[in-house]
Amino acid sequence: MSNFEVILQPIGRRVKVPVGTTLLTAAQQAGVDLVAVCGGEGVCGGCRVRPVEGQLSPATLTEKAELSGNDQAAGIRLACQAEVLSDTRIDIPPESFTAPQRLQVEGQEAVIDLNPVILPVDLEIPPASRQDLRSDLTRVKAALAEKSLPGACFSRRVAVDLPGKLRANGWRIRLALRGDEVVAILPPESRLYGLAVDVGTTKLAAYLVDLVSGETAAKAGAMNPQIAYGEDVISRIAYANEQAGGARTLQARLVETLNNLLAELCAEAQTCCERVVEAVLVGNTAMHHLLVGLPVRQLGESPYVAAVSEALQFPAREIGLELAPGAYIYLPPNLAGYVGADHVAMLLGAELAAPEKTTLALDIGTNTEISLIHQGKHLCCSCASGPAFEGAHIRDGMRAAPGAIERVRLSGGKLKIQTINAQPPVGICGSGILEIVAELRKANLLDARGAFGGEHPCLMGTGRGAEFVLAPAAETGHGRDIKVSRADVNEIQLAKGAIRAGIDILLDQAGLLETEIQSFIVAGAFGTYLDVESAVTIGMFPNLPRERFMQVGNAAGSGARALLVSTRQRQLAEEISLRVAYVELANHPDFMNVYIRALAFG
Amino acid sequence: MSNFEVILQPIGRRVKVPVGTTLLTAAQQAGVDLVAVCGGEGVCGGCRVRPVEGQLSPATLTEKAELSGNDQAAGIRLACQAEVLSDTRIDIPPESFTAPQRLQVEGQEAVIDLNPVILPVDLEIPPASRQDLRSDLTRVKAALAEKSLPGACFSRRVAVDLPGKLRANGWRIRLALRGDEVVAILPPESRLYGLAVDVGTTKLAAYLVDLVSGETAAKAGAMNPQIAYGEDVISRIAYANEQAGGARTLQARLVETLNNLLAELCAEAQTCCERVVEAVLVGNTAMHHLLVGLPVRQLGESPYVAAVSEALQFPAREIGLELAPGAYIYLPPNLAGYVGADHVAMLLGAELAAPEKTTLALDIGTNTEISLIHQGKHLCCSCASGPAFEGAHIRDGMRAAPGAIERVRLSGGKLKIQTINAQPPVGICGSGILEIVAELRKANLLDARGAFGGEHPCLMGTGRGAEFVLAPAAETGHGRDIKVSRADVNEIQLAKGAIRAGIDILLDQAGLLETEIQSFIVAGAFGTYLDVESAVTIGMFPNLPRERFMQVGNAAGSGARALLVSTRQRQLAEEISLRVAYVELANHPDFMNVYIRALAFG
Repeated sequence: MSNFEVILQPIGRRVKVPVGTTLLTAAQQAGVDLVAVCGGEGVCGGCRVRPVEGQLSPATLTEKAELSGNDQAAGIRLACQAEVLSDTRIDIPPESFTAPQRLQVEGQEAVIDLNPVILPVDLEIPPASRQDLRSDLTRVKAALAEKSLPGACFSRRVAVDLPGKLRANGWRIRLALRGDEVVAILPPESRLYGLAVDVGTTKLAAYLVDLVSGETAAKAGAMNPQIAYGEDVISRIAYANEQAGGARTLQARLVETLNNLLAELCAEAQTCCERVVEAVLVGNTAMHHLLVGLPVRQLGESPYVAAVSEALQFPAREIGLELAPGAYIYLPPNLAGYVGADHVAMLLGAELAAPEKTTLALDIGTNTEISLIHQGKHLCCSCASGPAFEGAHIRDGMRAAPGAIERVRLSGGKLKIQTINAQPPVGICGSGILEIVAELRKANLLDARGAFGGEHPCLMGTGRGAEFVLAPAAETGHGRDIKVSRADVNEIQLAKGAIRAGIDILLDQAGLLETEIQSFIVAGAFGTYLDVESAVTIGMFPNLPRERFMQVGNAAGSGARALLVSTRQRQLAEEISLRVAYVELANHPDFMNVYIRALAFG
Repeated sequence: MSNFEVILQPIGRRVKVPVGTTLLTAAQQAGVDLVAVCGGEGVCGGCRVRPVEGQLSPATLTEKAELSGNDQAAGIRLACQAEVLSDTRIDIPPESFTAPQRLQVEGQEAVIDLNPVILPVDLEIPPASRQDLRSDLTRVKAALAEKSLPGACFSRRVAVDLPGKLRANGWRIRLALRGDEVVAILPPESRLYGLAVDVGTTKLAAYLVDLVSGETAAKAGAMNPQIAYGEDVISRIAYANEQAGGARTLQARLVETLNNLLAELCAEAQTCCERVVEAVLVGNTAMHHLLVGLPVRQLGESPYVAAVSEALQFPAREIGLELAPGAYIYLPPNLAGYVGADHVAMLLGAELAAPEKTTLALDIGTNTEISLIHQGKHLCCSCASGPAFEGAHIRDGMRAAPGAIERVRLSGGKLKIQTINAQPPVGICGSGILEIVAELRKANLLDARGAFGGEHPCLMGTGRGAEFVLAPAAETGHGRDIKVSRADVNEIQLAKGAIRAGIDILLDQAGLLETEIQSFIVAGAFGTYLDVESAVTIGMFPNLPRERFMQVGNAAGSGARALLVSTRQRQLAEEISLRVAYVELANHPDFMNVYIRALAFG
């Protein structure tokens, strides 16, 4: 029996399987773990995929019941149902991956808007001789003038390399030109690369991009090493302010890790960091300031203002980032003290610089940044949503890592859980805690105020002491029960209340009803994997038609890559920063009322 | 009996003396050592001074015999003859100082051509508040826009200081603006300073200049610490090329000493280095390259070209120079591999950017750079004149330091010497060796080829072994004879031959006769103190009317100061570099003939 090849995009894995194999099985054989809480029964809807090429078995009745009309019209299939009938290529949306594939580095490939920041210029220079004693720079400038580039200038950092490079390459060189400035001198025909990094408080996602084609040549992720000095933004600001040399330490550790990531990317793309001639880094305002070396004291004290909100560019070597000697780092504008350049990059990555539809876009984290864009007006705010969705402040909470319970279903009273990597459960990650709260609400085991009630075999104790056991000690990786308490539920209430209050205040400022939101964009790591249905169930998101929701993955990373290869995208970033109106929730007279209302479960 | 005050310029010393005191005695009481080889007999002509204000005794017969008609017409007096009859101010020309006053930092005060590179801008900024959450930079930019400076930008190095400076100064600041770039943020009404340094191979001369008035606020000198790694340019290039990290060591040691000089200057002017917001450094091409971090390998190998001849500017902090965080270093253009930016600065300092007269200007050192400017055409060359005038390669040679024989007279067969600081003699410095050769020639004790002959009590031995004893062992500081040998005379021949050949080749290229030189400018440390008469006697300089010679002191230092306060002077430097034609002596077909002819004593 002949085998067919299944190509799994966007990660590019390939596998050969016999005819009739389900896509879920094919993916499992390729080592790609898809969400399959229901164990392949077609009822959890977790394994949604988009066929791109090839022939599959017709949609089953299960799929027709489980998939929305829109999904069906778009050709979406459940991987557990669709069988391979030919060579096939499928696209796996980010939310269908389980955690091991949850690389921060995934996310939509940015729409390539090539409008290059860097131009390659190839030169052949007459060598110095006793009859031609011009300096090296003079003769290179003359060659540039012949190419109609008389204004090209060399900074000191680049000029110091000129004599060596000219002689090592037989007086033939490729220059990387950034506007009027030469940022690198390379051997002839060298490929030129750029580095894009989403500098998250927790994770770093780095991309090496071919600056001529705009294509991503390599990706790599790492933890933000600053975590050792404080888990969240506030504790890092405190560390920077209170410890002698604290800010410098945080900067140095971050730059060190960025250099390691760069080396990893270069090895993967078989190039060297000398050919990396531009970088775009995006992060929240605190990550931005710590990276640049800007003070963060005023970010941590009322009225909480940024030192710099404008776009910045400066030589990478100034902070020790080991790109080409003359390469610049570009940092898009920050929007406010707690709405950073990563939010701008997210908007660009999701192509929301000037959307036609009324759009709400948010990136959920310890701080959740929200933009509401309506008829050319752009409001944004930041909500202190806390770290509950990162697993913190939750009794059995943990980060998304092997053994974390990430999917939960209570269908017909029967509890099903799925852990990352299918390991024995050891805790609950953000998407898991969100789902269990939603499932408990649906099963009426929780009331609108977050109190347990009703009966279920897993519900132990009563009143304030009640707890829901997700995994009994005998089944866990550490031999202790994994449980959800009233306190845990309250943490989720606080988080979702803050986010919903932010949404509601922005709607109020814009004079819009929630139903007028035509497009609801959820970005970022947690946002990629959260279950929208659950988020609506607990009232964190408004109850819009589901097709209005879009989970766009690490759009900030996509935006960073777009900014790397496009001056036009940099202009758009600038325009966003000039147009946006920041709404300080704490200053809003209705905030407390709205917040208290938003705390209740829907 | 009432005392009168004598003010000694340019060094600004003051002393009260009784009526009838000679100016020489007054100077000695003030601790200012004037040249007085003859011991105040009025016959050496060393103590020439220019009275500026006040009444002196009439010129003596001795003065009338000793001073030229021109000098007498110009009011020049001999300090040993003129007696103080009122409060008096005199100007001491550089050549009348003995070595202890031979500060490299003296020299004409540059004509102040204020055309500032740096502008102070005072701002008062509305503080951040809960009602006004703009970033610090945004509000400063708004204040600049109100002052019609909307384009002013901040580099990263400066922006990082903004939050602290705004808050420390109650939101009132003074910015130092360099074109469109803010280079420093200072307390309101701070004075702004610049640093000018003449980076010699041997000595550093540093000046702190008030950028608003253009006045020199402090001066300081130091040895170039690179001497420890090589006495001359060639040996330093070798060190940089052959030792691992050699170039970096040379750069680091120089920058360290510059930082020490800066601290000294700031202490003297009672300011701090944060207020030093611009620097101009001038040096020969090798000093320039080592300072900037440019490679010097191609400077040391045929065809001996500079890496960069264009003017350079870059942030001072990039090489560790501790000015204001955003301050720039400006380096004027180099003219060729061995005609550096210091030569350009010298021309500017002596106001020779576009002289009306046919002018020859030279700065004598191990390499002697010569410019010939005639009717808007400008030729220059570099001669390998060697270190003889710095005391090297001379048996009893030494640098100009206490105990060095610096003046020699053989009048009427009687030998008179004068040492620096009037210490017992320990050696002969450059001006001393030049004078003794000239005096020996005049006394017919040397022939045109440099062979000793004739009879004199100090002339010992015969033929190639003949030696002239300047100081017998019993009178010297170290108990050994101080002598001049045939080999020493030959070193001076080689040096003066190289210089004269350079002069003659330039004249030939320009189609001029030596008599057409209308102004003959001698700059630099040795050039300041050499005896023009002696230089003409041995044929190093052409025999022009003496009033055409001008010794201008450290004109490179004056030029550096002019470049610090004037964009116009920077344009002139640029124009010089574009106009100049460099003549490579080694390429000139007649060079060997001209050189051999120039070796002969006149």
